[in-house]
Amino acid sequence: MMPGTDTPIGNRPPRNRQVRLTSRADAIPQAQHFAIADTPVPEAPEGGLLVRNRFLSVEPAMRGWVSAVANYARPVGIGDVMRAFAAGEVIASRHPDYAEGDLVSGLFGWQDYAAVLPASVTRKLREPDLPLSASLGVLGLNGVTAYFALLEVGRPQAGETVVVSTAAGAVGSCVGQIARIKGCRTVGIAGGAEKVRQCLEEFGYDAAIDYRAGDLDTALAAAAPDGAHVYFDNTSGPISDAVLRHLADRARIVVCGTASVASWDPWPTGPRPERHLLVKRARMEGFLAFDYAHRTEEAVAQLAAWVREGKLRTREHILDGIEQAPGAIAMLYCGENTGKLLVRL
Amino acid sequence: MMPGTDTPIGNRPPRNRQVRLTSRADAIPQAQHFAIADTPVPEAPEGGLLVRNRFLSVEPAMRGWVSAVANYARPVGIGDVMRAFAAGEVIASRHPDYAEGDLVSGLFGWQDYAAVLPASVTRKLREPDLPLSASLGVLGLNGVTAYFALLEVGRPQAGETVVVSTAAGAVGSCVGQIARIKGCRTVGIAGGAEKVRQCLEEFGYDAAIDYRAGDLDTALAAAAPDGAHVYFDNTSGPISDAVLRHLADRARIVVCGTASVASWDPWPTGPRPERHLLVKRARMEGFLAFDYAHRTEEAVAQLAAWVREGKLRTREHILDGIEQAPGAIAMLYCGENTGKLLVRL
Repeated sequence: MMPGTDTPIGNRPPRNRQVRLTSRADAIPQAQHFAIADTPVPEAPEGGLLVRNRFLSVEPAMRGWVSAVANYARPVGIGDVMRAFAAGEVIASRHPDYAEGDLVSGLFGWQDYAAVLPASVTRKLREPDLPLSASLGVLGLNGVTAYFALLEVGRPQAGETVVVSTAAGAVGSCVGQIARIKGCRTVGIAGGAEKVRQCLEEFGYDAAIDYRAGDLDTALAAAAPDGAHVYFDNTSGPISDAVLRHLADRARIVVCGTASVASWDPWPTGPRPERHLLVKRARMEGFLAFDYAHRTEEAVAQLAAWVREGKLRTREHILDGIEQAPGAIAMLYCGENTGKLLVRL
Repeated sequence: MMPGTDTPIGNRPPRNRQVRLTSRADAIPQAQHFAIADTPVPEAPEGGLLVRNRFLSVEPAMRGWVSAVANYARPVGIGDVMRAFAAGEVIASRHPDYAEGDLVSGLFGWQDYAAVLPASVTRKLREPDLPLSASLGVLGLNGVTAYFALLEVGRPQAGETVVVSTAAGAVGSCVGQIARIKGCRTVGIAGGAEKVRQCLEEFGYDAAIDYRAGDLDTALAAAAPDGAHVYFDNTSGPISDAVLRHLADRARIVVCGTASVASWDPWPTGPRPERHLLVKRARMEGFLAFDYAHRTEEAVAQLAAWVREGKLRTREHILDGIEQAPGAIAMLYCGENTGKLLVRL
């Protein structure tokens, strides 16, 4: 246990604050769709652990998790603790693989304490030299997503041009840097001058485009004169439509997220992609990180090595206190965060 | 030379009728965009051949070939002989690989005689037991397209469901039969009761849907209860939109043609595909047969074997006389043809 923070105040035992889903959003979940409950700290279940969460993650995927619409994950139930990745410390273990003091990350939920079985643990952390928060970003779902989505679906070759949307974001910034490590020309698309600056100065993109600043077609033609060999699509919408007009032959489009689409009901329309795909013999393919869960250690080992070598830089946006969590999903979709969004407990 | 047909009448030497492009269509090319010229029969060029065409092919791809819009092939020039595949007989050769009497297929154009270099020859025909016309259909571009698009891009596995649009067409009917040979459940989508009958009775589909008859979603749910593992898309438009709502996990969508789109100017819109691709980790990929030209013999050998074994049936729709060619492209796009559309000279 870290010193101080969980010491009972007077006679009051520590409590477990939980962020629970209270209603479903029509579009982007807002603070009002959650409530914070004050509950007793649970015990470690038989065969499981009790984890003291230190950092809670905020993910774009949460929009899908709280939607009632059929999805790749079952919806979070009304009244349930919000599903979330978190990182923390084992404070009680009833499983031989885990000991008190182990640092772990996993689906521990938006709460102070999580009583979980090993199936909910993503991994036991083995990078004591790196910050715990990194296990939720560059060494967590974001980094692992960037790693497999780019390398397994995008398959960039040295000398190719890789165009990245949400280029300064938690996933996009990793994608751009990994593509650069692999010898590609990297072009980032982000919203606003500050994110463009981050792309160029912090994440090493060869070119960066502010999609709010003007004509995206002209900017893409200048930044990617040979076309996009790989397009890492985190947005859908008009940004993707523009990049599809600038594909190289045999381009690979990795569909990793749809950040620009506020709602799929009614289903949004856009320019049909078929002719681009046909003429360029291009491929557009969806990616879900869960499909690569069994290869997490392989990705984390490589990502951690790149972090240690200074080749992979990250940016975190940390909110303090669990009461910040309910409004945090909406921040992501407004582009208000500057880096991987985390809640520190 | 086949007997009779080219005998000079009285003192008149044989002539070479050529279908030439006279103007560009806004949408589907019609008869009025072509004119027939009467020219002298050319001589075999140095290092080349003179071919007497016997069958001219009519392809959906011709719409693209006569368009001024950037495409995968350079546009046919105004005043030029219409680009076309044809099959015929070598009547004069100035190349050691070809002899008088050889049967050949290639890009010989819509004309009676073609004076060509070997680069325009697709192949010397080696299937004397099979009809010459087959070299333009099941043993030509249509069959080779079906073979590589399905097997290399669609990658069907035994037990999977393969959904085919334009299912009774020259390409689609081959796709359905090859998928069946590979052990798949096959579902054809075609327009009208007669084509549905052909799908079921001639091409062996397990189920066939008339997209004009009613609710395509309900029909797809019934015909492909496990979803489409492979969707062979020759249409784009509402048929594709419906199939995308019925994908299996890891589905492969082969974009081979866009028959339902009358014009790409203005660019048509439709429901965005990204969410389907993401949730199902599906792949949508364009296919052009030209990329597989170097593997033509491999495909033709297998296709011819299946034809001889009675596993691969074809249907031809033959128009008699070169004067039928100019209006034939429009027939394809109206779905008026019943089988591979050819012009017999």
